[in-house]
Amino acid sequence: MSPHDPPPLATTGPVRVVGTGLLGASIGLALSTRGADVVLHDQSPTTLALARDVGAGRIAAPDDPEPTLVVVATPPDVTGAVVLAELAAYPHAVVTDVAGVKASVLADVRDGGGDLERYVGSHPMAGRERSGPTAAMADLFIGRPWVITDSGASSPAAVLAVRELATDLGAVPVTMGAEEHDHAVALVSHLPQLAASLVAARLVDATPAALGLAGQGLRDVTRIAASDPALWAAIITANAGPVRAALQALRDDLDALLTALDADLATDDAVAAALGAVARVVSRGNAGVQRVPGKHGGAPRDYDVVRVLVPDRPGELARLLHDVGAAGVNLEDLQLEHSPRQPVGLAALSVLPGVGERLTEALSGLGWRLAS
Amino acid sequence: MSPHDPPPLATTGPVRVVGTGLLGASIGLALSTRGADVVLHDQSPTTLALARDVGAGRIAAPDDPEPTLVVVATPPDVTGAVVLAELAAYPHAVVTDVAGVKASVLADVRDGGGDLERYVGSHPMAGRERSGPTAAMADLFIGRPWVITDSGASSPAAVLAVRELATDLGAVPVTMGAEEHDHAVALVSHLPQLAASLVAARLVDATPAALGLAGQGLRDVTRIAASDPALWAAIITANAGPVRAALQALRDDLDALLTALDADLATDDAVAAALGAVARVVSRGNAGVQRVPGKHGGAPRDYDVVRVLVPDRPGELARLLHDVGAAGVNLEDLQLEHSPRQPVGLAALSVLPGVGERLTEALSGLGWRLAS
Repeated sequence: MSPHDPPPLATTGPVRVVGTGLLGASIGLALSTRGADVVLHDQSPTTLALARDVGAGRIAAPDDPEPTLVVVATPPDVTGAVVLAELAAYPHAVVTDVAGVKASVLADVRDGGGDLERYVGSHPMAGRERSGPTAAMADLFIGRPWVITDSGASSPAAVLAVRELATDLGAVPVTMGAEEHDHAVALVSHLPQLAASLVAARLVDATPAALGLAGQGLRDVTRIAASDPALWAAIITANAGPVRAALQALRDDLDALLTALDADLATDDAVAAALGAVARVVSRGNAGVQRVPGKHGGAPRDYDVVRVLVPDRPGELARLLHDVGAAGVNLEDLQLEHSPRQPVGLAALSVLPGVGERLTEALSGLGWRLAS
Repeated sequence: MSPHDPPPLATTGPVRVVGTGLLGASIGLALSTRGADVVLHDQSPTTLALARDVGAGRIAAPDDPEPTLVVVATPPDVTGAVVLAELAAYPHAVVTDVAGVKASVLADVRDGGGDLERYVGSHPMAGRERSGPTAAMADLFIGRPWVITDSGASSPAAVLAVRELATDLGAVPVTMGAEEHDHAVALVSHLPQLAASLVAARLVDATPAALGLAGQGLRDVTRIAASDPALWAAIITANAGPVRAALQALRDDLDALLTALDADLATDDAVAAALGAVARVVSRGNAGVQRVPGKHGGAPRDYDVVRVLVPDRPGELARLLHDVGAAGVNLEDLQLEHSPRQPVGLAALSVLPGVGERLTEALSGLGWRLAS
């Protein structure tokens, strides 16, 4: 019944996975279910047993053959040390890690005298708000970028082995340097995480009446604030330099706002300064958000958006999407806008540019209420 | 074809709408289409004509009868002056405004000697990223909170008229003081808007390779950064006090982060301090986001979430939702998680607690690939 039967694995194994949390267990699960021999290790016997139980692989035994590939999926603050130990323990294996920071791990491996020919750092851009092996998903990496950070000293065979792992798991390999990676994730991952947390932290003391006014904007901005504090503390601390630079630039903009709003705004000049400062921040935000790529990872593009009112009861959304499909239109994105306390919702259907008009006509003709 | 035939209007009119942008035109449209006599005014003849053309009402004429209700829907920085003029021009009418800030408008009306018995401030918590009368929707207010800020001097009849307007438009009236409202929206609306803009502004100088690593987290945090700079400059400036307080509290947390990350992290103590500072911010964010109410405006609750892989081609999502509906299950929320460059997506189906298991069984039985 699978809509996509995957091709055979290029990664043959044995593959050793060290650290069987969400990422390690997901990698093991994806490889094991397709026949690879996956050997698991974790310093926590409980986590290890759970990973085995979800089907991520078998528990390492003393007489195991040497692995061809070791995947280190430990917290970032210990990743360098674990990579060094694995390079030493298995002198013929390629070793990669999947930590969310890359320069500090590479520095640890280099400073520790690790064999850089056999080490290739990597970072799959995939995750969940849940953690641990019970959250593992064989499909976690499908379609996601998988950054491969060739140190320059890595052997072509080692780089190829990690590329094959990424493509075996359905990910899209992307090559960049460790420093370049760390600056990139500071901007597109670590800064948004901290901003979401900082905004959500302000809600701890908010009144219930204030929270009752919350809309979709607040929900979107704060969704990722539900993430794991210990994991994020390790990630941010291991990427302190680039995160600090991004935070300081943000604070400079914030200070300009505060300076303009700190005046008592009693004069026209003070009001004009405040209006200008806020408009500048929002305008720069307009320009930045325009640059975020769309669904398929290419250049951003404007979709046509058709908004349809949908009664909030079983089958109505299906009927709408059936009608969309029957019109021969493929959805690029679908968002439901909620209507608290009312049995009606607004579905925003994004379609390729130029297709919106045809969809609008088709749905209107079928009696759907369009919102714009 | 309407799924819900609305009850007769309590608001009889004539209703005069001053300012025919998104909110004013939406109010006019909702009332006009149900038979009320709506008279429109805008200082821009173009905006006024567009509002008439979308069906928001007729253009005011010199011999019009005095309105029973005036709705001022102008930018917040001029709202107080317009309310004063309308109170003076129509000495028997109830006057409300729908500006996103309330204390400064009330102060302007009070300081200008306006008749506070006939003035009741209000704020429908509804909006769109698009603006202007062509974005008007009669359904814009359905199910949204509509804050009514009784100054204490308003007559009961005036408050009732504004409550009836809100309920006529399908909104849920919520009563609070003007100061309480302004502090609430600073936290749940203005602060998230500025944070989204500040994060998005950092992307202006990001490399295309960095932007290629963007995931759903960044998209969610920055979605509302696409908002209108001029409108937001007016809103934030008119609510400078509460926004400043919220921004300063955020900056205090940010400074604690920067202080911990500013060290060179060469010692174990420095690393421990950095880990602690980040974990504290993320933990407080956990606590805050937990307090955001769910879809139906009540207390937050955990939905069961069933994740299903959906091939990215016409009709597949419809087929999935048909199968959900056929199982008798009502969706509380639907999110599509995107898979850049891959022809498969992940649909996260949120259903009432306890229903997830039944849905999982039903979908598995029909051959859908479930992700967890």
